[in-house]
Amino acid sequence: MLTGIHVAFIGGDARQLEVIKKCSELDATITLIGFDNLESNFVGATKKTLVPESLQEVDAVILPIVGTDEKGHVESIFCSNTLKLTEEHLSSLPKHCILYTGMASNYLADLCTKKQLPVIKLLDRDDVAIYNSIPTTEGAIMMAIQNTEITIHGCRLAVLGFGRTGMTLSRILQAMGAHVKVGTRKPEHVARAFEMGFLPFHINNLADEVKDLDLLFNTVPSRIVTAQVIANLPHHSLIIDLASSPGGTDFRYAEKRGIKAILAPGLPGIVAPKTAGRIIANTITRLLVEQLGIREESK
Amino acid sequence: MLTGIHVAFIGGDARQLEVIKKCSELDATITLIGFDNLESNFVGATKKTLVPESLQEVDAVILPIVGTDEKGHVESIFCSNTLKLTEEHLSSLPKHCILYTGMASNYLADLCTKKQLPVIKLLDRDDVAIYNSIPTTEGAIMMAIQNTEITIHGCRLAVLGFGRTGMTLSRILQAMGAHVKVGTRKPEHVARAFEMGFLPFHINNLADEVKDLDLLFNTVPSRIVTAQVIANLPHHSLIIDLASSPGGTDFRYAEKRGIKAILAPGLPGIVAPKTAGRIIANTITRLLVEQLGIREESK
Repeated sequence: MLTGIHVAFIGGDARQLEVIKKCSELDATITLIGFDNLESNFVGATKKTLVPESLQEVDAVILPIVGTDEKGHVESIFCSNTLKLTEEHLSSLPKHCILYTGMASNYLADLCTKKQLPVIKLLDRDDVAIYNSIPTTEGAIMMAIQNTEITIHGCRLAVLGFGRTGMTLSRILQAMGAHVKVGTRKPEHVARAFEMGFLPFHINNLADEVKDLDLLFNTVPSRIVTAQVIANLPHHSLIIDLASSPGGTDFRYAEKRGIKAILAPGLPGIVAPKTAGRIIANTITRLLVEQLGIREESK
Repeated sequence: MLTGIHVAFIGGDARQLEVIKKCSELDATITLIGFDNLESNFVGATKKTLVPESLQEVDAVILPIVGTDEKGHVESIFCSNTLKLTEEHLSSLPKHCILYTGMASNYLADLCTKKQLPVIKLLDRDDVAIYNSIPTTEGAIMMAIQNTEITIHGCRLAVLGFGRTGMTLSRILQAMGAHVKVGTRKPEHVARAFEMGFLPFHINNLADEVKDLDLLFNTVPSRIVTAQVIANLPHHSLIIDLASSPGGTDFRYAEKRGIKAILAPGLPGIVAPKTAGRIIANTITRLLVEQLGIREESK
């Protein structure tokens, strides 16, 4: 339970509602900043404006997945005002306060360092990345079905990268009946891909391995789907790049060669906002209980 | 091989190109009727008009999946003229000729009976229905991902009917991490569903079994998703009805209750026209070799 814990939400999208709901269920005291147009009433929640006084008694601040931009602006789909997080705001937080965000811009990271405010970046966590790989995989599968004239079943395809997303994606594509090759560098990933019945190959051989592919999925956030690789792909093939923007594909050359290539980062919030919200909600509330619950006991 | 076999195609869509291609590869002699605007040139193929003379030396006539309508019209996306198949056309066919179609309207069935022309209805075949269940399943999964805010993974769902499509769909949804119940009447289907790790239930108990569902897929072509069943579904749930039009759902009541229900028949030709074409092509050419090859030998 989060009884006696005061949590302030600053901005957010549909996903944040799941976090607020879960905090409310766990009996937290909740301050909502930038939620002026939100109609639902959560038990224990009060709407306030973004002024230092609103933050004086707060144990945890929760920002949206993207945190702030490089000028400190926080997005909220629930209010029309601009929210800007400044040093003045952070100065009024109690010393023990913790800040939770999906990712941290340089602006946010610098501000928190200056104020010695601990920051938890959720998207840096392995568990969150693995949970998020589920909606990412479903989004990638949806796009593959939408953008081809053939079934995934029977497809010859490759997944590049066998990390948190690559493993989930490969597994589901295989279960759907595709012939799945996995391109990776790490020997332990080669071993795991082999154990799971995929055909592993080394990324260095990528240009040779793509000649008969119908589909190429990339999860590696560096430029590995080069012009040379694209030149070897069959004309009918499709590239789906799931790596964070700008992706790992030479999109300019793909267009020039007439091969369809789609950059699709951030799929969880798009294809399954409710599930994506629950992933964040479960993780944040578990961390709040662990991190702030202990503080309460040691008082 | 189909050397020496003369096949006439009357009308069709993108799928039919796969059939023509395969017949051409197998060395058949091909007459194309209603393909005036088709640009690709297939080896051994000649374009003709729909007159009795075009059909005098034909061993097999291949119609599109939908066959003719109830007035004898045959659709073709490759010509702007109206094609109407009449008794006069069939009268000019050799006695041994066989007609292949996806399905037969009363008009077509009556005409063929009168002319004693054997008709192969491909969509009546179990093998074709099982192959088609693959693109149908992928289309259904695409629609589920598009129309919900949650992932299929972790969903509570039911598949109604455990025939050729129901089994494929249940299996892939389970592989994606859904909790799959299967509603069926046949004891052998209950047994198979149990063996495969689903939760089987009798369709008679449907209204009781839907109370906690996120998703309901129907494959049964009779009105089983009644108002009473829909009344018990949670408000956020989604119905995807894959049965032939008009489906098995009381769409009027679903709309009244505000539950989203989608009728989605004929998915193979929509989501994977190339694969759907190959399914037809493989089946027709295998049958041509079996049925007309034997005739050739016995000459």
